[in-house]
Amino acid sequence: MTELGPSSEALSDPEYRAAVVDLIGVLAYGELSAFERLAADAAMAPTVDDKAALAGMATAEYRHFCALRDRLVEFGVDPQDAMTPFRAAIDGFHAHTAPSDWLEGLVKAYVGDGIGTDFYREISAYVDPQTRDLVVAVCGDLGQSQFVVDRVRAAINADPRVGGRLALWGRRLVGEALSQAQRVAAERDALSTLLVGGVDRPGTDLAEIGRMLARLTENHARRMAALGLAA
Amino acid sequence: MTELGPSSEALSDPEYRAAVVDLIGVLAYGELSAFERLAADAAMAPTVDDKAALAGMATAEYRHFCALRDRLVEFGVDPQDAMTPFRAAIDGFHAHTAPSDWLEGLVKAYVGDGIGTDFYREISAYVDPQTRDLVVAVCGDLGQSQFVVDRVRAAINADPRVGGRLALWGRRLVGEALSQAQRVAAERDALSTLLVGGVDRPGTDLAEIGRMLARLTENHARRMAALGLAA
Repeated sequence: MTELGPSSEALSDPEYRAAVVDLIGVLAYGELSAFERLAADAAMAPTVDDKAALAGMATAEYRHFCALRDRLVEFGVDPQDAMTPFRAAIDGFHAHTAPSDWLEGLVKAYVGDGIGTDFYREISAYVDPQTRDLVVAVCGDLGQSQFVVDRVRAAINADPRVGGRLALWGRRLVGEALSQAQRVAAERDALSTLLVGGVDRPGTDLAEIGRMLARLTENHARRMAALGLAA
Repeated sequence: MTELGPSSEALSDPEYRAAVVDLIGVLAYGELSAFERLAADAAMAPTVDDKAALAGMATAEYRHFCALRDRLVEFGVDPQDAMTPFRAAIDGFHAHTAPSDWLEGLVKAYVGDGIGTDFYREISAYVDPQTRDLVVAVCGDLGQSQFVVDRVRAAINADPRVGGRLALWGRRLVGEALSQAQRVAAERDALSTLLVGGVDRPGTDLAEIGRMLARLTENHARRMAALGLAA
């Protein structure tokens, strides 16, 4: 990934700083929500081992949340204030994509989180190195990929009709994620300027945004294929 | 606490070893369930800060679960096999004591977990030092006490009727815990021999069991009083 972002000195610019606080705030609330959702999925697990695996993923999300919250505190920002603007969009996403069973929960953990972390990693190209390192660290794979792929493929092998249902579910997850992302972009000007640029900061152009969307779509299709699902 | 348990060599006795595996198995499944339940309570939290606090407690329970699971693996036991016998009793406890709101969840985290960890600490007097250290470590206070006390007292100050409702709730938690504990004691002979003794191991007498129950009851009353509730 090319480094397009400003240097760390940019954090003294109030507009840029507000944008970074927004970015960390939305990520922090996203991680806290991911924790809750994975923990709820653990309750649907068919075996104690599966339960423990989901609980372990949830715990990793919580650690990411803590790293983001600590950064907000370093900035002298109340973490709750930084997260609250994003509560409606993220709660809305989860309310509209509540898994009805264990397999839907697994697909959501892999496909839904995958497109989210890809997006944040793309955004991280446009921020200062210190913020970028944090974003990249909390967007790393939690090791859940192979676990989810194994479980979902086994379920489709056992009953191929499951594949059709989960493919529809994957499309619904992406649609809902895009709709909530648009809501956030429309409401949070500061955050949007990370991509489009500010007074003294270069942004990106429409062609690069198009390429970014193409990369996100390709990665999504790759993940669906790994699960044995039509994107 | 006096040390009444056997030395670590006792682990070579198959009957004693089975009892210790049972003890660690029930504790492990209890911690995994506590993780799930605290995470579900986090979803009911009124503020993002409260949500984060509950998520932090849940994560600590998960770490305890991991320590117990690792010990089972050291014993060459499949953790799932060791936990499964206790699933019905612990799931039953949680099914019968599902909190209907945030405050009931907090009281359960403090009063319900409190009586559980007190009981396991009492039992730990009757096991080898290695097992005792593990039990005592996973039964430590997770730092939630002050948080819960503050929140519950504030709620009762704001509306004293809340105190009556939560006092009834606390009594129900203890009743349900005792009923599930009896179920476990009746079904798991090996576990019961930790208290009553085995062929080559001294157990305890009825008078000491009576004193133990008195200590558990006193500690429970102390916790209820700390919350401002009648025991």
